[in-house]
Amino acid sequence: MTAYKDLSREELLELKSGLEAQFEEVKAKGLKLDMSRGKPSAEQLNLSMEMMDVLHSGVNLVCEDGVDCRNYGGLDGIAEAKQLLADMMEVPKDNVIIFGNSSLNVMYDTVARSMTHGVLGSTPWCKLDKVKFLCPVPGYDRHFAITEHFGIEMINIPMTPTGPDMDLVEKYVSEDPAVKGIWCVPKYSNPQGITYSDETVYRFANLKPAAEDFRIYWDNAYCVHHLYEDKQDYLIEILSECKKAGNPDMVYKFSSTSKISFPGSGIAALAASEANLNEIREMMKVQTIGHDKVNQLRHVRFFKDVHGIVEHMKKHADIMRPKFEAVLDVLERELGGLEIGSWIKPLGGYFISFDALDGCAKAIVAKAKEAGLVMTGAGATFPYGKDPHDSNIRIAPSYPTPEELAVAADIFVLSVKLVSIDKILESK
Amino acid sequence: MTAYKDLSREELLELKSGLEAQFEEVKAKGLKLDMSRGKPSAEQLNLSMEMMDVLHSGVNLVCEDGVDCRNYGGLDGIAEAKQLLADMMEVPKDNVIIFGNSSLNVMYDTVARSMTHGVLGSTPWCKLDKVKFLCPVPGYDRHFAITEHFGIEMINIPMTPTGPDMDLVEKYVSEDPAVKGIWCVPKYSNPQGITYSDETVYRFANLKPAAEDFRIYWDNAYCVHHLYEDKQDYLIEILSECKKAGNPDMVYKFSSTSKISFPGSGIAALAASEANLNEIREMMKVQTIGHDKVNQLRHVRFFKDVHGIVEHMKKHADIMRPKFEAVLDVLERELGGLEIGSWIKPLGGYFISFDALDGCAKAIVAKAKEAGLVMTGAGATFPYGKDPHDSNIRIAPSYPTPEELAVAADIFVLSVKLVSIDKILESK
Repeated sequence: MTAYKDLSREELLELKSGLEAQFEEVKAKGLKLDMSRGKPSAEQLNLSMEMMDVLHSGVNLVCEDGVDCRNYGGLDGIAEAKQLLADMMEVPKDNVIIFGNSSLNVMYDTVARSMTHGVLGSTPWCKLDKVKFLCPVPGYDRHFAITEHFGIEMINIPMTPTGPDMDLVEKYVSEDPAVKGIWCVPKYSNPQGITYSDETVYRFANLKPAAEDFRIYWDNAYCVHHLYEDKQDYLIEILSECKKAGNPDMVYKFSSTSKISFPGSGIAALAASEANLNEIREMMKVQTIGHDKVNQLRHVRFFKDVHGIVEHMKKHADIMRPKFEAVLDVLERELGGLEIGSWIKPLGGYFISFDALDGCAKAIVAKAKEAGLVMTGAGATFPYGKDPHDSNIRIAPSYPTPEELAVAADIFVLSVKLVSIDKILESK
Repeated sequence: MTAYKDLSREELLELKSGLEAQFEEVKAKGLKLDMSRGKPSAEQLNLSMEMMDVLHSGVNLVCEDGVDCRNYGGLDGIAEAKQLLADMMEVPKDNVIIFGNSSLNVMYDTVARSMTHGVLGSTPWCKLDKVKFLCPVPGYDRHFAITEHFGIEMINIPMTPTGPDMDLVEKYVSEDPAVKGIWCVPKYSNPQGITYSDETVYRFANLKPAAEDFRIYWDNAYCVHHLYEDKQDYLIEILSECKKAGNPDMVYKFSSTSKISFPGSGIAALAASEANLNEIREMMKVQTIGHDKVNQLRHVRFFKDVHGIVEHMKKHADIMRPKFEAVLDVLERELGGLEIGSWIKPLGGYFISFDALDGCAKAIVAKAKEAGLVMTGAGATFPYGKDPHDSNIRIAPSYPTPEELAVAADIFVLSVKLVSIDKILESK
C-alpha cells in the first residue's frame, strides 16, 4: 500500500471519486448504526439472566452474619459481597465498601464530599480559589464531566503505551498544591485499551504530592474484562503499592459489576485505606441508611465467588472478541499502510481508540453520520470536549451485532479515507 | 387516678418503693428489647416476598417504552415506575423522577447540590456566610443530621396539633433571606403522627420567601401508611397548591417504597415542578448513568398500580395496628390521669410520641435501658440532639413482636413513673 501522503494530487482526486461513489451507495441504504456507546449487547445481558432466579420467595434472604437483607441496616455492605468484590479488586475485604448500582455515582460523591467537607481534615475544596485535576488523554468523558461540573480545572496529560506521561504527572503533583487528583483507568483504559506498566504503577505509588489531600482516582472498571484467555494484561495492585511506599491514603480504587452482570443493576465498590474508608463511612451515615443489600445478596448467590466471575467473563469475552476482531480486521485491511490513522489492538476493555490525521476527527465523525453511523462525538475523550489535535475517535464495538459491525466498520474507513484525502489535498 | 403532683411526699415515697420492687423484678429477667428503630418487622417483610418471584429468567425485562431495563440508560426512571409513584404521591407523572433505594439519599443530594451549585441559578450555599433551615420539632433525626452535616443552622419550630407553628414559619421565611428550607413530614409525622391541616398546607403554599431559593422539603414518607381503614388522615397535595398560589418551584416532595416493599431495596422518588426537575436532571446526568431499572420494573410488576399498593398497605396495617394499640393501651391504663406524661394516638405512620415531665426524658430512657429496653435516644427528635425541655421520647412499636411489646411497654411506664416521682419529689 502506498501512503496517501505520497500520492500525487491527481491520484488522490481519482481515488476520491471512486470512494465517493462507494460512499453514496452506502448512504442510499439509509442505515442506522451505532458505535458510540460502551453498552453490553443483549446477548451479553442474557448471560446473567439466571441471576434473576437465585432469589425467590422460597429463599432465605438472611446473609452470613445474620443480617436480614430485606430490612434497614448494613451501611457499608454485606460481608459476602465485600469478599466477592474484594477478591475481584485484589484487596483485603476490610478495605472495601459496597455501594449502590453505579461506581460513577461513587466517584461523583467522592468529589462532592471533598468539595463540601475536604479530605481527612483538609480545607473543603469549595473554600479554595483553585482546584486542579490531572486528566490522562484520551480518557473517559464522564470522569471529565464530574470535575468540570464542580469547576475543577483540568490539565491534559498525554497517554503513552505504558500509561500517562509520568514525568509530567510527577512534576504537577509534586509542585502544585492545587492539584488534588488524577483520573485513571489503569487497565484496558477507556478508550485506548492500554494497561499501565509496572513502572507506571510504582511511580504512581511513590508520588510525593504537594497537596496532603491529593488522591489518585483509580477507576479499575475493566479489571476482569479480558478478550483472550491466553493473552491478558496484568496490572499491579495499587493499594498495596501505595501502602509499601508509605502513601496508604493516596488512592481511591473504584470498580463495579456493571459490565459483568447488568449495567444499571449491578453493585459498585470502593477500595481504600482504613482512614479513608472511616471518613467515608462517617459521611455515608448521613447520606443513607444503606444500599440495596438484596441486590448484593443476589450477586453473591449467583457468582458464588471470584472464580464464578472469572468464568462468567469468559462468556462475555466469547461474545466481545469476534466484534473487536471484526473491526480491527477492517481497519488493518483497509487502512494498513495508508498512514492516515493509527490504532491500538487492545486485549480487553470496551473500546478501540483511533487516531486520525490532525484536524480530521470531527469531520470523520460527521461524515460517518451522513451514512447513518453514529460514533462517539469527536473530542469527547478530552476535558471540555476539546481535542487539541482534533484527532482521536473512540470506537465502541460492543453493542451492534457482528453483521452491523462489519457494515459500520466499512462506513467508518470510507469516512476516514475521504476526509483524509481532503486534508492531504489542502497541502498539495 | 390521682395526679402524682397532688400526692404527698409520703405517698410518693411509698409508691416509689413498690414500683422499685416491680422494676427490680423485671430487671432480673435480663431482657433484651428494642423500641428504638422505625423498622418493619420480619412479618411485614414477608408480605413482599412474592415480589422476588415476578422477575425471573423466563420473563422479558423490556419496559413499556421499549427500554431494556437490564442495560444502561433511563436517567430519570422507567415510565411505568413514574406512573406508579406519581399516583401514590398524587402528582402528574411528568412531575416525578425515580431514584435509587433511598429517599434520604435523594434529600441529602438535594441539599448537597444546593451547597455546591445553588438552586435555579442562585448563589451556591457554600459561598454564603449563613444558611438556615427551619426544623419543626420534635422531628426526624436524619433530616437534622443532613443539615447539621452541611453546617446549616437549624431553628426549632414547635409542632402543634395541626402542623408546625405557621405564624413562626411565615415570620422566618418572609423576613430572613438566609432561611433556605424547612424539613416537613406532613402526614403521620415522625414522631408525633400528626397530619398537617388544610389551613397549614395552604399557608405553606402561600409563603412569601425572602430567599428566591427557599424550598419546602416535603418528606411524605408515610403517605399510604394508615393504621385503620375507617379512620384516616387526609393531606392536601402540596405541589398543586403551590402552583395555584403562584409558587410552583417552592417545594420538593419526597417519597419511597421503603416501608411498603423492602427497606433498603425499595425505590425512591422526588416530585417537583418542571423547572426544578430539569435542573436536577442536568446534575444527575453528571452523577450517574441511571438508577436500578430492574428493581423499578420489579416493583411495577408486583404492585401493578396504586390500588395494588393500597391493598398491600392494608396488610401492613393489620400487623401494625395491634402493636400500636398494645402500647397505647398500656400508656392509657398505667399513666392515664397521673399527669406525668402525654401522648397522641396516631392514625398512621411508625411512631408514638411521648412527652414526659420537663427534664425527665433522658432519665426515663436511661432507666428503661437498665431493664434491657432500648428506646430512641432522648433528644434525637431535635436538632443537634438537644431537646430544650428534655421531655420528648419517640416510641417505635413496629419491630418487636406483640409479646415483646407488652413487656416493653410495661418497662417503659415503670420507668416513666419512677423518674417522674423523683422529679416531683425534688420540688416537694
